[in-house]
Amino acid sequence: MDGFTLENPVFRIYVIAASLAVLKMIAHAFLVVQRMLEANGGFLNPEDLRRTISNPEPRPDQLAPNDHVERARRMQRNEGENTPPFLAAGLLFVAASPPVAAAAVLMYGYVAMRVLHAIAYLTERDHEVRATFFTLGALCTASMATYALYVAVTR
Amino acid sequence: MDGFTLENPVFRIYVIAASLAVLKMIAHAFLVVQRMLEANGGFLNPEDLRRTISNPEPRPDQLAPNDHVERARRMQRNEGENTPPFLAAGLLFVAASPPVAAAAVLMYGYVAMRVLHAIAYLTERDHEVRATFFTLGALCTASMATYALYVAVTR
Amino acid sequence: MDGFTLENPVFRIYVIAASLAVLKMIAHAFLVVQRMLEANGGFLNPEDLRRTISNPEPRPDQLAPNDHVERARRMQRNEGENTPPFLAAGLLFVAASPPVAAAAVLMYGYVAMRVLHAIAYLTERDHEVRATFFTLGALCTASMATYALYVAVTR
Repeated sequence: MDGFTLENPVFRIYVIAASLAVLKMIAHAFLVVQRMLEANGGFLNPEDLRRTISNPEPRPDQLAPNDHVERARRMQRNEGENTPPFLAAGLLFVAASPPVAAAAVLMYGYVAMRVLHAIAYLTERDHEVRATFFTLGALCTASMATYALYVAVTR
Repeated sequence: MDGFTLENPVFRIYVIAASLAVLKMIAHAFLVVQRMLEANGGFLNPEDLRRTISNPEPRPDQLAPNDHVERARRMQRNEGENTPPFLAAGLLFVAASPPVAAAAVLMYGYVAMRVLHAIAYLTERDHEVRATFFTLGALCTASMATYALYVAVTR
Repeated sequence: MDGFTLENPVFRIYVIAASLAVLKMIAHAFLVVQRMLEANGGFLNPEDLRRTISNPEPRPDQLAPNDHVERARRMQRNEGENTPPFLAAGLLFVAASPPVAAAAVLMYGYVAMRVLHAIAYLTERDHEVRATFFTLGALCTASMATYALYVAVTR
């Protein structure tokens, strides 16, 4: 039983994993905002130096790169490089009617790897830790796309 | 009545809103191109300094960041952070068979907020204006993903 | 005959083209990783300068921008600006039940243009070559979104 309905357990897993991935991506945008507020800096636009309600005492160095903010931006960028292809690959995987267990491992696996990647990034773990979680997440996406490609070509 | 067909009014709203969001994202890429032509600079690659038909008089400072171009690039980057999760969240929302009115508000609402965000960015409005439209757009996306997650988990 | 199943030839073309586009996007991430290993530099995070198994002799200049790595990053960024809207536009196009030939031209055309764009970028061709492939790829995406918009609005 396949198809894009919640009666299909593979699609249901996709909806759960993809919703979490979307919410995580939005959360990254708000982490950048939160850190700009905390640092009162790391802004990007000249107009952000105007005296306004949220910036009562503007200073030129508010436009300088701020380490605290830049880390959140790098995390957001990394998410933006990984999550859109996952969202598409998951949908393509559903169309290829894979075993439910494979969908659960690869889709929940991707989300879990990205949560661990974010924790490693936030807590400034060694590069190898971050790279491992990034690589495992990317392999989940690549596996799903490869399977969908194989099924569509050989069908 | 649900499903991914144009007979489903929720999906039809999604196709209209998502098409507009895709076209806006492509338009941002061309805005960057247009501004590089206007500024005759803001290029990124060393090879762009070669003497060619479109660059008859190359100058080294064509690789320097150009404010006019950088603004368009920041707008494009912001769109790239927001629109892919919207495109996915909208599809997930369709799968959750929401009320038609909710789909219309959240999907057309997202597109409207992003158009207003772009106008605020182009016309260099105060940070608060831009931030308001960004936040409202991101909340549309987050609401749809949260609803889809809830429906898929409790189904 | 339409719908999101592999029995629909338009959807089958989409699954093949979208899988390839996803795999190319993932490949770009690994090209950045490979070039960081080759250059032993171009890192982004202060913690990447720790002495670890993969970085036995850290040097401060490993955080400096590295041309070899930066080219791969610009390619990845360009892919991230173009492929997510393509993945969405293709799906919207399927929903609009276009002629099979149109789907084949626009979907395989997008993938072909992006492969040629990557070759032009890697081999540092003149700007005009890169710009041509970028533009043709973006027009594939825009055409599909415009058609889907038209069909959904007039249905």
